[in-house]
Amino acid sequence: MFAGQSGWIGKLLDGATAELVAGADAQDDCAVFRASGPMEIVVGSDYVRGPKFQLYESGHLSNFDIGYYLATANLSDIAAMGALPIALLTVVRYPRSLSDADFAAVMAGIDAACRAVGTVNVGGDIGTAERIILSGSAVGIVEPGGALLRTGARPGDRLCVTGPTGLAASAQRYFGAAGPGAGALAAEREDELIASWRRPRALVPQGRALSASGVVTSCQDTSDGLKAGVQSLAAASGVGFVVDEEALPVAGLVAEVAALTGGDVTATVLGDSVDFQLVFTVPPDGFARLPEDLAFHEIGHATEERAVVLRRRDGTVEDLPGVPWRHEV
Amino acid sequence: MFAGQSGWIGKLLDGATAELVAGADAQDDCAVFRASGPMEIVVGSDYVRGPKFQLYESGHLSNFDIGYYLATANLSDIAAMGALPIALLTVVRYPRSLSDADFAAVMAGIDAACRAVGTVNVGGDIGTAERIILSGSAVGIVEPGGALLRTGARPGDRLCVTGPTGLAASAQRYFGAAGPGAGALAAEREDELIASWRRPRALVPQGRALSASGVVTSCQDTSDGLKAGVQSLAAASGVGFVVDEEALPVAGLVAEVAALTGGDVTATVLGDSVDFQLVFTVPPDGFARLPEDLAFHEIGHATEERAVVLRRRDGTVEDLPGVPWRHEV
Repeated sequence: MFAGQSGWIGKLLDGATAELVAGADAQDDCAVFRASGPMEIVVGSDYVRGPKFQLYESGHLSNFDIGYYLATANLSDIAAMGALPIALLTVVRYPRSLSDADFAAVMAGIDAACRAVGTVNVGGDIGTAERIILSGSAVGIVEPGGALLRTGARPGDRLCVTGPTGLAASAQRYFGAAGPGAGALAAEREDELIASWRRPRALVPQGRALSASGVVTSCQDTSDGLKAGVQSLAAASGVGFVVDEEALPVAGLVAEVAALTGGDVTATVLGDSVDFQLVFTVPPDGFARLPEDLAFHEIGHATEERAVVLRRRDGTVEDLPGVPWRHEV
Repeated sequence: MFAGQSGWIGKLLDGATAELVAGADAQDDCAVFRASGPMEIVVGSDYVRGPKFQLYESGHLSNFDIGYYLATANLSDIAAMGALPIALLTVVRYPRSLSDADFAAVMAGIDAACRAVGTVNVGGDIGTAERIILSGSAVGIVEPGGALLRTGARPGDRLCVTGPTGLAASAQRYFGAAGPGAGALAAEREDELIASWRRPRALVPQGRALSASGVVTSCQDTSDGLKAGVQSLAAASGVGFVVDEEALPVAGLVAEVAALTGGDVTATVLGDSVDFQLVFTVPPDGFARLPEDLAFHEIGHATEERAVVLRRRDGTVEDLPGVPWRHEV
């Protein structure tokens, strides 16, 4: 499944390249890239087993889906740095009860998610374990000075998000044990809802565009939820944020599931939903430098005062509702 | 525990550098390195839970020890490429029953193993799970063309190993359930035996020296055992090997444990022992280019015929004994 990947080339805007000279097909101790030209190298790891996979255990996600998810979760960290992913490494451990076909499906899902953002799975570690274990690492490259850190937001900067959040949490609520059960929504709406888990997207083009603009002062993905993302930018940058409830993008499905389950829409949008959007800050005079075709929503602004608050539609101000994602079982 | 790591600089022989500009202390989506100068980037992953940790479960390895082991297992892959490790990423998932102090000990072990080879743990993923899960990835850099692949061995090349193998397997046999039990060896010999698991070394200086020599035609570590390593070099290079039993370095402890347990010394030295030595090939006229202070043993030679065989002390030739490491539970 790894045949022919050596020779893959990642190319930065200034012509710097990373060429894969020994990929997974080489079966060496490591994969090898030949880097030429100045660049920044970014690396991150994400383990994705645990509570996130209740939907797998309940049969809503296939083996292909969890492979796809593992890859995206890791590649999203690269996107959030504004970098071009050059490598995914995956650890796939599985019980003997998993058939060869099921294992191949996990690997095919990983491969498909890599292809979706133009990168390659260069290897990792495969073997058995008492139960399925999925972990990964991703490597990216970015132009010198181009990495999007969390530290640069300044008071007055505008807070933006690339798209609506809350879909992943809504899917968990809808399909979960306490949910309304299949059929409460039309089949095609159910498919759309579960797609947030089946085919999550690592927003690599968006991250690259944000980096290339030169005006983005901080950025991260919303893999721990939008609230956690905003709080993290605040803490790292030493600022606060006012989030405007009215400005938050809300997907129709989030509202529908909230209505079905008695949930709160704003808390769902801000809470522990693993949506892989990018949340970022731009100075007011920087918007002109963002590409016209980049979709995003301005949802608030950074403040000198270091509190992170929500301004409700009625003008009242309160702490951000919603709980951030807990890395717990 | 991650304070102050940003600013760390890895420097290659030709002056190319990778400077850590956002480490684990930055708590960003990824760690960021600023690379300058041409280089090769190597990346690999290693999961180390499973049968390797019977010694942990039986109390022979501490939490510090398994952290140290996790780091070394990953850094050894970088050493085997001839590269300078610039980053370790670790996934540490643990049950709620693990105390904060025990968790801190795992992280301290990881940190100590990184320091032992002059590199840094730049982050990864930490959280709970039903049981302890340890996985890692490592990143290294090496001069252009300097990566030590498995593919370059040619008939006539000499086969070498940096040191004795079989110690890790002997420790498993000695301390295992079917072993002779504590006290069969003197306490200090027992300490020496378990040290192969407690303080394994990633042979970074040796790997760097082999790469810098320019004469090493193939290399890998013996983390799956010496037999598996030789077979892998053979398969990747399209050659065979004759291994001389008489030339195999044998540690005294391996012979002592074999005597105590009725084991076969040569099978232990070649078999599924996770020792992290480097096995490599050099053309006969290349030895003069290896540094004088590099310790290694010449144990055989590459052949045109693609079989991998052992030449016994009595001159008879047979298949290599010993079983390679199985990535199985």
